Amino acid sequence: MPLLAALDYASVFVFALTGALVASRAQLDLIGFIFIASLTAVGGGTLRDLILNRDTVFWVANPVYIGVAAAGAIIVFFTAHLLESRYRGIVWLDALALSVAVPSGVGAAVALRMPDSIVVIMGIATGCFGGLMRDVVCNEVPLVLRQGELYVTCALCGGTVAILLIHVTGALPLALLGCAAATFALRAGSILWHWRLPVYKSFPPRQ
Amino acid sequence: MPLLAALDYASVFVFALTGALVASRAQLDLIGFIFIASLTAVGGGTLRDLILNRDTVFWVANPVYIGVAAAGAIIVFFTAHLLESRYRGIVWLDALALSVAVPSGVGAAVALRMPDSIVVIMGIATGCFGGLMRDVVCNEVPLVLRQGELYVTCALCGGTVAILLIHVTGALPLALLGCAAATFALRAGSILWHWRLPVYKSFPPRQ
Amino acid sequence: MPLLAALDYASVFVFALTGALVASRAQLDLIGFIFIASLTAVGGGTLRDLILNRDTVFWVANPVYIGVAAAGAIIVFFTAHLLESRYRGIVWLDALALSVAVPSGVGAAVALRMPDSIVVIMGIATGCFGGLMRDVVCNEVPLVLRQGELYVTCALCGGTVAILLIHVTGALPLALLGCAAATFALRAGSILWHWRLPVYKSFPPRQ
Repeated sequence: MPLLAALDYASVFVFALTGALVASRAQLDLIGFIFIASLTAVGGGTLRDLILNRDTVFWVANPVYIGVAAAGAIIVFFTAHLLESRYRGIVWLDALALSVAVPSGVGAAVALRMPDSIVVIMGIATGCFGGLMRDVVCNEVPLVLRQGELYVTCALCGGTVAILLIHVTGALPLALLGCAAATFALRAGSILWHWRLPVYKSFPPRQ
Repeated sequence: MPLLAALDYASVFVFALTGALVASRAQLDLIGFIFIASLTAVGGGTLRDLILNRDTVFWVANPVYIGVAAAGAIIVFFTAHLLESRYRGIVWLDALALSVAVPSGVGAAVALRMPDSIVVIMGIATGCFGGLMRDVVCNEVPLVLRQGELYVTCALCGGTVAILLIHVTGALPLALLGCAAATFALRAGSILWHWRLPVYKSFPPRQ
Repeated sequence: MPLLAALDYASVFVFALTGALVASRAQLDLIGFIFIASLTAVGGGTLRDLILNRDTVFWVANPVYIGVAAAGAIIVFFTAHLLESRYRGIVWLDALALSVAVPSGVGAAVALRMPDSIVVIMGIATGCFGGLMRDVVCNEVPLVLRQGELYVTCALCGGTVAILLIHVTGALPLALLGCAAATFALRAGSILWHWRLPVYKSFPPRQ
């Protein structure tokens, strides 16, 4: 399906940009940029393909994805100094990447006729694990753990919207677009207006 | 085999409790609790299933496992403040989870007619990697690295007891129960009475 | 192919030595040494086999590999105090392990008739991820992120040399040996004479 491939390409490219920006904070060389960018870009989708036991991991079937990730890394290497705040760049590009990676995971699971719960979980896993690997390897606080921000919640809502739209309309492309829009809207609201869920509070704090 | 499924459910539930307690130390929201709890709960078993090349990862075949992990996370979210020491709760629940995850890994490998050495290794991997992922993602010192405590050793002994009981008695359920008992007894002894093996000492320290 | 098996054994043994040396810095006991050594030794190859969808992970097909890793850990446990600098030991043994792991990944991908780009990537992944897992779990700064040193670049050049030699000479054993030599020469030059690529510099630093 062309839409699914487009989502995969977009997710790889934008996650690669975030990985390269994190690499720039660690002051790596160009090959280091490409390494971290590729890990971030294909990490979530690789996990998705292994868990779903697809015949071939998506970037092994089509190595162009790695070229796309490398292109993103090269662009960032030569232009990141133009950004006013790399940190804000990471957060917003990551929001965009999350919003296309979630429907990509959802679409892959639907294509394998997985039950609804697995479809939602694969959306979350595809969306969250690339960025998680990036942050763990580069020793940044993972975005999924950033206190008082919605992150996994956005992926969960996006996946749920996709399932609802599939059942109501029967149109997968519409469902994937709705999924992307819901994920991005919620994440953007959380970044801009600090939308959040109540967090656990310990009394007394940290034992 | 019902015993194997029971071990899997118990391991998922108790590991989820430990993951949620770690999430409470990071003051996440409810969805964050469920995310970390699920990662901890199914991480070891997912690795086991991928390495053993089983047809389907256990929780993809039966998504109820994720519901069990989520239930554990929700319970902890609303009751963790009742604990006197969350840290002690994590250590003891983790000991319990380890003791059911090791026989679950052993049983899965035996069912695939793996050689004894792989059976023991899959017991160790299933037992240790869920907690390891939890600690790496949440930036806690991994329990497997806690100095002067037995951890991997407990899983190794549990796996060895299982192999011995299989060869001596031929009864797999008995072997799995013995494995769980041996793992827990050793881990409990290490926590309570500081049983340990000699550790590496460098002269002079840390070069 | 005997050369491929020899590369696998060498890579497992030498990576195990580096893992055990890192374990010695964390002052673990003997079983902790074996755990970290095995993780380091088979981590990269396990990832390679999962991504390439090989029928059986190499050490599951032949558990002797784990015995080799354990032997390396035991040797280090009893002899590491003889080293003048464990840190230098880790860096040089890691360079050696990288140089045999890259051709092992290349050879495995060639045997599955993968395209050139995937061959190079599997060389990089097999070479880099065992050490990366070791460093992430033990909370050391990953060697791949060490600023101003060539690491991934060495694996990339080694893989490229292998591809060139395969196309020019058609002799795989020669290509794998050339790959190992190129990887090691570049890494050694980077350690000894600080060969490096220009790194990203931010103006002003770290936003």
